Amino acid sequence: MSKVYVVGLGPGAGEQMTIQAKKVLSSCPVIVGYTVYIELIQKEFPEKEYVSTPMRQEVERCKLAFEEAMKGKDVAMVCSGDAGVYGMAGLLYELGDKYPQVEVEVIPGITAATGGAAVLGAPLMHDFAVISLSDLLTSWEQIEKRLDAAAEADFVICLYNPSSKKRSDYLRLACERILKYRAADTVCGIVRNIGREEESYKILSLGELKNTKTDMFTTVYIGNSSTKQIGEYMVTPRGYKGV
Amino acid sequence: MSKVYVVGLGPGAGEQMTIQAKKVLSSCPVIVGYTVYIELIQKEFPEKEYVSTPMRQEVERCKLAFEEAMKGKDVAMVCSGDAGVYGMAGLLYELGDKYPQVEVEVIPGITAATGGAAVLGAPLMHDFAVISLSDLLTSWEQIEKRLDAAAEADFVICLYNPSSKKRSDYLRLACERILKYRAADTVCGIVRNIGREEESYKILSLGELKNTKTDMFTTVYIGNSSTKQIGEYMVTPRGYKGV
Repeated sequence: MSKVYVVGLGPGAGEQMTIQAKKVLSSCPVIVGYTVYIELIQKEFPEKEYVSTPMRQEVERCKLAFEEAMKGKDVAMVCSGDAGVYGMAGLLYELGDKYPQVEVEVIPGITAATGGAAVLGAPLMHDFAVISLSDLLTSWEQIEKRLDAAAEADFVICLYNPSSKKRSDYLRLACERILKYRAADTVCGIVRNIGREEESYKILSLGELKNTKTDMFTTVYIGNSSTKQIGEYMVTPRGYKGV
Repeated sequence: MSKVYVVGLGPGAGEQMTIQAKKVLSSCPVIVGYTVYIELIQKEFPEKEYVSTPMRQEVERCKLAFEEAMKGKDVAMVCSGDAGVYGMAGLLYELGDKYPQVEVEVIPGITAATGGAAVLGAPLMHDFAVISLSDLLTSWEQIEKRLDAAAEADFVICLYNPSSKKRSDYLRLACERILKYRAADTVCGIVRNIGREEESYKILSLGELKNTKTDMFTTVYIGNSSTKQIGEYMVTPRGYKGV
């Protein structure tokens, strides 16, 4: 029986890929994915059959993966970061009942939340909430409800998809909600292009973050009430004594 | 200048380690860590100087790492999963101001949340909250507040440290709180010994989870209101049309 592996490439698809992910990519004759991710790995694995589809054609992309597997070939469907966090893993399981001969297996990867945290220092050392600001598949009201809940209960908050061309003011709106519960000098951080050559980061206050422009390649961190800036790093203490 | 690398070994410290983590372990002459994690990697890197300390001596362990680095040697401090999620990264930055000659760098790893999610299927496809039930360093009142907030705002919830010998009823208490906001048939999952030979998992309802005994090696997932069981997998739909 052929398999579809959903492979998280980690941030940047470079050395932050796991050993397991690399082995699976080596062993699968067919690699399916969004064009940009395919380009990231094509150099390292030139001898593969590549099937790429543009953004927003997620259902189509999954069906293509199953159809290739139905021909008897193992398929790696690649995703940036972790395939199980706002990635393609769920959709493959949902569509899988139409292809009972094909097994789906998730190969985890470093997701942006933890990859970006390592760049900033240690912002996620305590309880945290991951929220996507994209309202393509979720209502903005639901997103606001989650922002409020996470802010009020003093979670560290990690935001995926903080803005896009169409949603240029969403990060500002999110910060305004969080500011109802948290001080303007709360330590925050942004990381852009995690794991790529152009990687960059900045530590700033929640008040400053509200007026900061970001894009689709940025991950945003809002500290809890204990988060500190130590030197050039963002650190959430866990609470050990003797520090 | 010598460095202390805080290296996340991923779950099980096997093939779910990143290529970068393996390179750093290869290049550092000294490896510091909790005895159990040291045992996991000692076979693969026999030629190292190992410094291990028992559990609960976290501050001591970090100081040892800095002292080794002060001797001019690069040090890898190893953690299970990701060093930045309830790991040692934060403590190293907090203690670092006493060792200004030593730089600290975090090498991210697959954390239990995403490693275990891959075993269960795709439970974390939508906004999620990560909460530790350990009240060693956090008050139980704060933990309850976060459980309430995450449950009410319909986050998928991932619980670390669901119980220990001293806290054998904490998971039951947590489930009781969540049941105030979420149905007893909410799809949940538990994964034990992620990434190790003895790895096992189970999908069950929130009502069943309440009466389930777990241990320190278990990670718990509580679905949101849309989470489904599909075959033997736990899947949170992201909301794509055409499924």
